[in-house]
Amino acid sequence: MSEATGRERSWWGWGWADEAVDAEGCAKLARRVGPFLPLDGELTPVPAVPELPPSRLRPPAAIAALCRDDARSRAAHAYGRAYRDVVRLLHGVLDNPPDLVAYPQDEAAVIAVLDWASDAGVPVVPFGGGTSVVGGVEYRGGGPWLSLDLTGLSGVVEVDEVSRAALIRGGTFGPDLEDALRPYGLTLRHFPQSFAFSTFGGWLATRAGGHYATGYTHIDDLVESMRVVTPAGVAQSLRVPASGAGPSPDRFWLGSEGTLGVITEGWARVQQRPSFRAGTALRFSVYADAVHAVRAVAQSGLRPANCRLLDPLEAMLGAAAADGSSRLLLGFESADHPVDALLARAVQLCREHGGTEEDTARDTTGRWRDTFVGAPYLRDGLARLGVVVETFETACTWAAFEALHAAVVTAAASAGEAETGSPALVTCRFTHVYPDGPAPYFTVYAAGRRGGEVAIWDALKQAAGDAIAAHGGTITHHHAVGRDHLPWYTRQRPEPFALALRAAKSAVDPAGVLNPGVVLP
Amino acid sequence: MSEATGRERSWWGWGWADEAVDAEGCAKLARRVGPFLPLDGELTPVPAVPELPPSRLRPPAAIAALCRDDARSRAAHAYGRAYRDVVRLLHGVLDNPPDLVAYPQDEAAVIAVLDWASDAGVPVVPFGGGTSVVGGVEYRGGGPWLSLDLTGLSGVVEVDEVSRAALIRGGTFGPDLEDALRPYGLTLRHFPQSFAFSTFGGWLATRAGGHYATGYTHIDDLVESMRVVTPAGVAQSLRVPASGAGPSPDRFWLGSEGTLGVITEGWARVQQRPSFRAGTALRFSVYADAVHAVRAVAQSGLRPANCRLLDPLEAMLGAAAADGSSRLLLGFESADHPVDALLARAVQLCREHGGTEEDTARDTTGRWRDTFVGAPYLRDGLARLGVVVETFETACTWAAFEALHAAVVTAAASAGEAETGSPALVTCRFTHVYPDGPAPYFTVYAAGRRGGEVAIWDALKQAAGDAIAAHGGTITHHHAVGRDHLPWYTRQRPEPFALALRAAKSAVDPAGVLNPGVVLP
Repeated sequence: MSEATGRERSWWGWGWADEAVDAEGCAKLARRVGPFLPLDGELTPVPAVPELPPSRLRPPAAIAALCRDDARSRAAHAYGRAYRDVVRLLHGVLDNPPDLVAYPQDEAAVIAVLDWASDAGVPVVPFGGGTSVVGGVEYRGGGPWLSLDLTGLSGVVEVDEVSRAALIRGGTFGPDLEDALRPYGLTLRHFPQSFAFSTFGGWLATRAGGHYATGYTHIDDLVESMRVVTPAGVAQSLRVPASGAGPSPDRFWLGSEGTLGVITEGWARVQQRPSFRAGTALRFSVYADAVHAVRAVAQSGLRPANCRLLDPLEAMLGAAAADGSSRLLLGFESADHPVDALLARAVQLCREHGGTEEDTARDTTGRWRDTFVGAPYLRDGLARLGVVVETFETACTWAAFEALHAAVVTAAASAGEAETGSPALVTCRFTHVYPDGPAPYFTVYAAGRRGGEVAIWDALKQAAGDAIAAHGGTITHHHAVGRDHLPWYTRQRPEPFALALRAAKSAVDPAGVLNPGVVLP
Repeated sequence: MSEATGRERSWWGWGWADEAVDAEGCAKLARRVGPFLPLDGELTPVPAVPELPPSRLRPPAAIAALCRDDARSRAAHAYGRAYRDVVRLLHGVLDNPPDLVAYPQDEAAVIAVLDWASDAGVPVVPFGGGTSVVGGVEYRGGGPWLSLDLTGLSGVVEVDEVSRAALIRGGTFGPDLEDALRPYGLTLRHFPQSFAFSTFGGWLATRAGGHYATGYTHIDDLVESMRVVTPAGVAQSLRVPASGAGPSPDRFWLGSEGTLGVITEGWARVQQRPSFRAGTALRFSVYADAVHAVRAVAQSGLRPANCRLLDPLEAMLGAAAADGSSRLLLGFESADHPVDALLARAVQLCREHGGTEEDTARDTTGRWRDTFVGAPYLRDGLARLGVVVETFETACTWAAFEALHAAVVTAAASAGEAETGSPALVTCRFTHVYPDGPAPYFTVYAAGRRGGEVAIWDALKQAAGDAIAAHGGTITHHHAVGRDHLPWYTRQRPEPFALALRAAKSAVDPAGVLNPGVVLP
């Protein structure tokens, strides 16, 4: 239950319990999806919290007041919110839920939990909003463990209006953070799809991708300094706009996914709320032309805030553009100056590559935004209908993209056919674009098999991940490594860096209790 | 001797031997400086390479052909090119020059050198262009050591015109790199003041600051992937535009200053050469107004390429603007679109803060650029005249700047007075500006005392460094840590990060031979 809103989070699915797609909505969904994928006509009921085996851990007096072991708390902290998590919870599969959930309200309590856990050898899995889609908050070691829910460390502590920065506690959810900045006319403008249900500390731990399609958009670029509790002491980095003093301490903890410490707060760069906006949608009849247009825009230095290229299938499913063409959603924004000239130049570049502006650009953009925000709820509805539906993403150079795109689409579609008898549908959009390459984001829809959903998804993911790796893509651009990406991550990471990370972990987490199995296998 | 140019590098001072300020030039300098600082009328002669004690190291057969131990090679690799280096070389102070200088021509040779050094326990100091101003290439351990000159690993190996990236070997000097990119219409556009005499690998190892005053300008942001030889193996990071897969391997080696490996090559993001430019110079009668104007520009999202604010003394000495006002040099550039509107908006912001455009903006900018490029040569001339002259830099938040600036100027001037009887002159300019703060760059001129120059400088530096640290600045924004910044760096670095770095170093450099005494004391 959220104190601020009085609304309840779903313990098994995405977001708010009262926004889950209901039976009627699922029936509608079935009518939309039926033409593309075979459905069995069944609807998995919304599950009740199952009974769990008793907790194997007894917290000591020092932290007992912070800990809960009721079934709902434990079930809600057992997994993240990937498709494979939701479908397991739908079917009541809870192999090894946490034995305890600790809810520290301040840094001292975090230290107390880590002290006890280090002494007792209890694995601790830091948990922000719990929206991981890569198994980042699910301990798979078999033994007892503790989930460390950090949402009690919430709030904006201080705002430096002169330097445009804010000190934000790690457990602050996106909307709470923006609410606190709004009275100052400021915004962090970091809106991952999980925005409403993920936390500032979680974004830092997982190197979240941001609102902007170009420029400074990753949380890595927005953070000024960090405070991290490790079993070896508290690390506070210096708050400066830039520093060349040795390797960056912040970059050591950014992406460490709870394995090297618990992020309790950080200063972030904030900005004035934008007041100038300009945007449009462009149609490309040939996808390759659209890719070239986006490359031209990405290399132009125009830095659009939005530059989302939807391939034909994504355009159809996400923006109701059913004519087989691709759509580019293009937008600029500024708090300081008009951006119409920037948009005009970007549109000109697109025209030179075969793009035409849509008359109904605003509708297309609006439809796509609605789909984007509602997608995780729809996914849960589809999961109840038995559809296998999930996303994955990467980044690659422009030179590598064409082959990577073809290989990934083919591999995932074929794996779907091998597993289910009908090819999977694979859509692609760009979430971010860089002068040297795009970040393609894929959505897969495949026919399900009741009880076999996880196996089907794992086979699809294996095929897709292998295709990405074979074509020079990173296994993740902004979804993090977690446990699900480990096989590809360990191949892509330079071995001497693995040696260095392992040694560094031993130094800051000598007992090895911090999120074991993530990033460092 | 450079094969390409037939010109000879100075072994004791900055840059090309034939561009050193000659006796006549020094006399002119003396007339310019005399009114401000007491001079003793002497001119230290240009030194001859001194005789050195015999080398204490005998390279094994496997690397003997790569190694030299002649006095000139050893003397030229004994120090970097800080003022305290130049003045020591002017006076023939060579306490512990390297016993060997190795010149590998390929990665295999780098590996062979590290293998031998690890077995024999010989410290290895990687040396690119040798322009360190922080003692980064000077081993201070007393025993025998080897300087690893990497300029044999030179050249641009491959250009990916589609993705706008180039594979560059670590020992490539700035001009050679630009020469290789020019036929493609491309440029790295990374122009540190040392550009002509520093290398790509050196920029990466020290996190060099770039051409642009704003936006993606640090070499950290321009590098796509790196290849690093460590005693524990070769690390090759994945070449992608962005990755959220764990902590960034590149950021581990960026700023490691030769302590964690030898950077042999890297892919860098390059760009089209700019064809649109607009710039101006503005006068501010009140320095604080100018600072506020620059903050407004930095927070506007306009992203000027040049945004150098010269305080009144810097404006006088560097741009011959002797009316006691400050000068802001402002410039925009693009390869894609006109930038006049951006400049106009920036000028408008400056006007709102009391700035007026100069009629002779082009002259001011030109004079300042000439001063900038010639400064290191002038410094050597001043050193021969007995003047103590050096620079240091930092970055801090906008909220911290005013107090930091006042404290640093006062501290350095007072330390000058305490040491020499007359206050030091301290000038300040901004090299880079960020939405959350500036990177102020200070130049100090103090009366010298023959034979006491190093002690005077060290006292000035101690006072300035302490003032920076006390007011929230980083001890270096782009000059690196080296050995000279260690006292402040160790205070500013979070202790758990120090533990992690030390452990990581032990993992990739088990014998501890890589640049001992830098970054990790």
